[in-house]
Amino acid sequence: MASPTNGPVRIAIAGGGYGAKVALPVYSKLEEFDPVAIWSRRAERARELADEAGLELGTSDLDELLSIPGLEAVHVATPVVMHAEFALAAAERGLHVMCEKPVADNLEDACRIAAGIRSAGVVGAVNWGRRMQESRRRLIERAREVVGRPRMVSVSLVYDDHAEAGSRPWSWVHDATLGGGRLQGYGVHDIDLILEIFPDVESVAAATEVGVPERPGGDGGEAMRRVTAEDAYGILLRFRGGGLGLVSLLATAHHRRGDVIEIHGDEGTARLDGDRRVWWGRAGEELRCEGPLDSSSEEAFRQVARNFRAAIRQGAEPEPSLEEGLRVQAVFDAVRAADVERRWVQPKAIP
Amino acid sequence: MASPTNGPVRIAIAGGGYGAKVALPVYSKLEEFDPVAIWSRRAERARELADEAGLELGTSDLDELLSIPGLEAVHVATPVVMHAEFALAAAERGLHVMCEKPVADNLEDACRIAAGIRSAGVVGAVNWGRRMQESRRRLIERAREVVGRPRMVSVSLVYDDHAEAGSRPWSWVHDATLGGGRLQGYGVHDIDLILEIFPDVESVAAATEVGVPERPGGDGGEAMRRVTAEDAYGILLRFRGGGLGLVSLLATAHHRRGDVIEIHGDEGTARLDGDRRVWWGRAGEELRCEGPLDSSSEEAFRQVARNFRAAIRQGAEPEPSLEEGLRVQAVFDAVRAADVERRWVQPKAIP
Amino acid sequence: MASPTNGPVRIAIAGGGYGAKVALPVYSKLEEFDPVAIWSRRAERARELADEAGLELGTSDLDELLSIPGLEAVHVATPVVMHAEFALAAAERGLHVMCEKPVADNLEDACRIAAGIRSAGVVGAVNWGRRMQESRRRLIERAREVVGRPRMVSVSLVYDDHAEAGSRPWSWVHDATLGGGRLQGYGVHDIDLILEIFPDVESVAAATEVGVPERPGGDGGEAMRRVTAEDAYGILLRFRGGGLGLVSLLATAHHRRGDVIEIHGDEGTARLDGDRRVWWGRAGEELRCEGPLDSSSEEAFRQVARNFRAAIRQGAEPEPSLEEGLRVQAVFDAVRAADVERRWVQPKAIP
Amino acid sequence: MASPTNGPVRIAIAGGGYGAKVALPVYSKLEEFDPVAIWSRRAERARELADEAGLELGTSDLDELLSIPGLEAVHVATPVVMHAEFALAAAERGLHVMCEKPVADNLEDACRIAAGIRSAGVVGAVNWGRRMQESRRRLIERAREVVGRPRMVSVSLVYDDHAEAGSRPWSWVHDATLGGGRLQGYGVHDIDLILEIFPDVESVAAATEVGVPERPGGDGGEAMRRVTAEDAYGILLRFRGGGLGLVSLLATAHHRRGDVIEIHGDEGTARLDGDRRVWWGRAGEELRCEGPLDSSSEEAFRQVARNFRAAIRQGAEPEPSLEEGLRVQAVFDAVRAADVERRWVQPKAIP
Repeated sequence: MASPTNGPVRIAIAGGGYGAKVALPVYSKLEEFDPVAIWSRRAERARELADEAGLELGTSDLDELLSIPGLEAVHVATPVVMHAEFALAAAERGLHVMCEKPVADNLEDACRIAAGIRSAGVVGAVNWGRRMQESRRRLIERAREVVGRPRMVSVSLVYDDHAEAGSRPWSWVHDATLGGGRLQGYGVHDIDLILEIFPDVESVAAATEVGVPERPGGDGGEAMRRVTAEDAYGILLRFRGGGLGLVSLLATAHHRRGDVIEIHGDEGTARLDGDRRVWWGRAGEELRCEGPLDSSSEEAFRQVARNFRAAIRQGAEPEPSLEEGLRVQAVFDAVRAADVERRWVQPKAIP
Repeated sequence: MASPTNGPVRIAIAGGGYGAKVALPVYSKLEEFDPVAIWSRRAERARELADEAGLELGTSDLDELLSIPGLEAVHVATPVVMHAEFALAAAERGLHVMCEKPVADNLEDACRIAAGIRSAGVVGAVNWGRRMQESRRRLIERAREVVGRPRMVSVSLVYDDHAEAGSRPWSWVHDATLGGGRLQGYGVHDIDLILEIFPDVESVAAATEVGVPERPGGDGGEAMRRVTAEDAYGILLRFRGGGLGLVSLLATAHHRRGDVIEIHGDEGTARLDGDRRVWWGRAGEELRCEGPLDSSSEEAFRQVARNFRAAIRQGAEPEPSLEEGLRVQAVFDAVRAADVERRWVQPKAIP
Repeated sequence: MASPTNGPVRIAIAGGGYGAKVALPVYSKLEEFDPVAIWSRRAERARELADEAGLELGTSDLDELLSIPGLEAVHVATPVVMHAEFALAAAERGLHVMCEKPVADNLEDACRIAAGIRSAGVVGAVNWGRRMQESRRRLIERAREVVGRPRMVSVSLVYDDHAEAGSRPWSWVHDATLGGGRLQGYGVHDIDLILEIFPDVESVAAATEVGVPERPGGDGGEAMRRVTAEDAYGILLRFRGGGLGLVSLLATAHHRRGDVIEIHGDEGTARLDGDRRVWWGRAGEELRCEGPLDSSSEEAFRQVARNFRAAIRQGAEPEPSLEEGLRVQAVFDAVRAADVERRWVQPKAIP
Repeated sequence: MASPTNGPVRIAIAGGGYGAKVALPVYSKLEEFDPVAIWSRRAERARELADEAGLELGTSDLDELLSIPGLEAVHVATPVVMHAEFALAAAERGLHVMCEKPVADNLEDACRIAAGIRSAGVVGAVNWGRRMQESRRRLIERAREVVGRPRMVSVSLVYDDHAEAGSRPWSWVHDATLGGGRLQGYGVHDIDLILEIFPDVESVAAATEVGVPERPGGDGGEAMRRVTAEDAYGILLRFRGGGLGLVSLLATAHHRRGDVIEIHGDEGTARLDGDRRVWWGRAGEELRCEGPLDSSSEEAFRQVARNFRAAIRQGAEPEPSLEEGLRVQAVFDAVRAADVERRWVQPKAIP
């Protein structure tokens, strides 16, 4: 699977949102990568982004993107419903694939991507960047050390970036049919973190909500467009063998606060507080504290990118792997069904 | 309905747990009350408690309790499933009733109590003491001032008093068939608080859990007895007209922390942090802070007791009232059904 | 129950919406009634309405309204959640009550109203005006003649009055917590019609939708307010013993059409087409046609008002009666629960 | 995949119902096809049909059917539960497959067929003939032009062909265990039409009904046989991102009428009325009208057959394709589960 040369990995970025804003600058700064092209649904926007970053190509044509000479890898950061199309097209041409989270809009598509990557023999990775943030990485380590079996785990996010209609103009993340919503933005990261510690989710219940129903813009215009993808959610989890979980986010708060994650087990406790400090201890011990820790997305993605290169050049196991992507996808699908069907849903087994 | 004399209210306490530990000492210290008798399921225990407090009577016989001369009121703090029997017997004899929360084990019983009290023309009150705690009282006031319509409300409680089997020996609160569980202990208070601010709950989903399955004792013995009533729970709420709620408690944490309550609305924010400080502000304002505030149960119950007396002597409206008890009961019933039936349940309307 | 004098019935109207726009003008034109007072939540609005109609009193004070000398009856046209308060206060003072549909926001409140009216010995009626429209009245009669047992009944309404945010400024009918929504506006009439023909509904499934999420105004302002009460719905019914029903409304169509109602039984067919013509026939016969028939609300309400007076003055059975109101309410409650809980719900038995 | 010869396609028809009545005569009249054999469960019936149509073979033996020399394609019009067996056997022999709708009795079988056809490298098509009817084809085109996002879509069919027990003698379409029922007859066509316009169905609720419980015959006899497959149904749909749908059919009406299909979106309206006229217009425009348009099944199937040939001879994309068949199947499965489980069900993603 490895391509044991020494040069930087020639990579194309598909997507003018997160792809252009976070992934591209990181790749540009890392000497291990050589970003050569970018795709956006609007050709003009793609060309602008390419010019700004000094890339060889900006295009809205997937085939043109994948045909650029010497291309080795693609970072897929399109709207979620388009992941399968892009990732499979790349794999079929023998290109390595870094896929944004969630892998796909549903488990079936995610499995198709995984199968396509497996049969093409290329490297597949998923950008579970948040677990690479120092604050969350330390929390996971400490939890593994001290908590034992789950009693209760909770992840509570309160953001203010969607509080007003104008504070976040309309984009595909506001459109449910394109795979948008805060669950795909944040919820999947939090499910990923929980599964890293307690992998056995028995069933889920969930509620999603659109608090700000219309936003201006989309395609440059100022007209109000309907928001159909959630800006808030609450999820309950039951673990197999006992223990409860709560995962929630409100993106429309008028006053944000730092992420709070608490992990209570039968042997001890680990906690990330709102000031990015990790607390941990066993039963009977006083909690110890470390922090504030770094939680920057850019630094986290830099680590994801380096792991991706190590898998390409040295044949290392990709981390996070596509299999971890499927595991989250199964729970994510159950959350969507539970919300829609208003009942508890058991995640499907991964084929 | 008022009894316009000046003397202290002669009151009997039914229940050797909270009744003996919190209610009785408060009544004893307040000059507005004259506690005269106590009931416990075990006659010997009842006599001990009466002797210690200098009461006229300690008995395990309800009729004897209610027949003590000059008795005016009864504080019902029995296991929850016995509330209806005690409260109705008291009301039928013309005695005023202070009922522990929840009013009953189900809405039907709670309505029977309310009807019995109404037709007897006596005062009926429910001990929603927690909302009288200074910290929660201020939070409610601030929320009413600034938050507007609900976007997300969350109540998160983490206690360590049930973490070990031996830390809380077995009692009726561990027995589901007697109406035990942490939902009746804390959850109903938190539902009460939410309904004070946002009264329109559309539906609920819920999960309960027994983390420590056996506890020693009960009736003085040391043998292990099975725990059937939850020591942890998570609840999701959808509000009619929009907005989500989360209510959770873990009583088996190895490391406790202060209660955290957050109320996010379309106009502003109010929050109680883990150090008993209240924060509040409108959209665009910085949050202001007050505290730490008092959260003692005893002081809170003192206020409930005084309100009860005012209703008895001056004909004031009881606060908290039985109607507020029914409102919580409807949601509480829905939570129980939602947990068992693994689906979302709409609270019943109160007849 | 009858008040056998000859004079007009002195009546007060509670509500500045339908009450002021439809009920008051009809009462003013009918010599059988003498409208004397009007209530609105805003005192100034109430006085304006009273002045325009030459009434003795316009007030926002319920007690003042009910205390006007010689008052005999009240027409309750407030937001739905306030029906119980107004109807019961009126009945307690011995006033006859004409209640807008639905009787209340839930079956329990509706039963309380019915019980209050029964125990006060006054006349209680519900304004199921639509079934009094000539078009629907004839359809019901023809259906009873020819259709036999139910195979399928469908009611399909397509209106354009809510298509644009500005076409219907925000009022209480857009607020779910005040009992608003198109189900209370139209759905209950259509359920009433179906129950007139096939009274045995076994269970219902339902979906509601807010298509236009914000509307300007409310209290005179132009700011956008959130719409939380449905502007579209679809309902499925199963009849006990067989047969299906469909009831739907879209209030946000860009092109309206006439109401279509089809009643297919095992013996024949009756149908109201979009041009207000009734078609009917037995199996084997060709359908006959009558119409276009009148469907004016004003004429229909005139008949309801006359029936109300006949019940007051001559002791006639009120038609439509409160009992018919309860029957609809049980199905209406089931529809709400079915929508919220995403399952089939059996209507409760009427106590 | 294409077989680039010029001659007619040698095709066998499996099924003595629709296959013999509609498909065979069309193939016989089209010079692009050469029907050579027919299969029916009863050998005698098969031979009769072959004789009448001048075919080389009539048989009840699947292997014999598929072994006829020079055979290129099979039209599978058996009872639904046998589709997978026939289609897979044909594909394995390298024969192109035209499958009647629905593709199978459940999504799993449908996917097996699709996988078998894919791996055999033959052409697979599904006979979604109704969408090829001129009336429906124009409606779809107009809807795509003017309606925008869904607010409400409804399809209402009222037929009289099953009204009496004797009007349609018993056949496999009356037997649920053979995959019969009006949903497989008509409902899947209507779901197909809706998905052509609004492909994102979030969840469904449904009710089916047998109105005429016994029918004479089957296998030539006159004895009454039990009907277990629905002759009426009602379906509610919620679209992802908002909007409602209603699909209903009554096959036991005593008075039939033309199909009515209404499509209301946030930008405009398209409608097929009972006289086969299409109406359409954008918000603010008056509706324009076209028609009456042709709705003959035979003409529609002729187009399906021509498309099938183009896929075989010129390598054109089959239209309607098997993928479109799977999309309908996922919703069809959800409808069956929703009916049985009496709850809302989310369609499965297609693997």
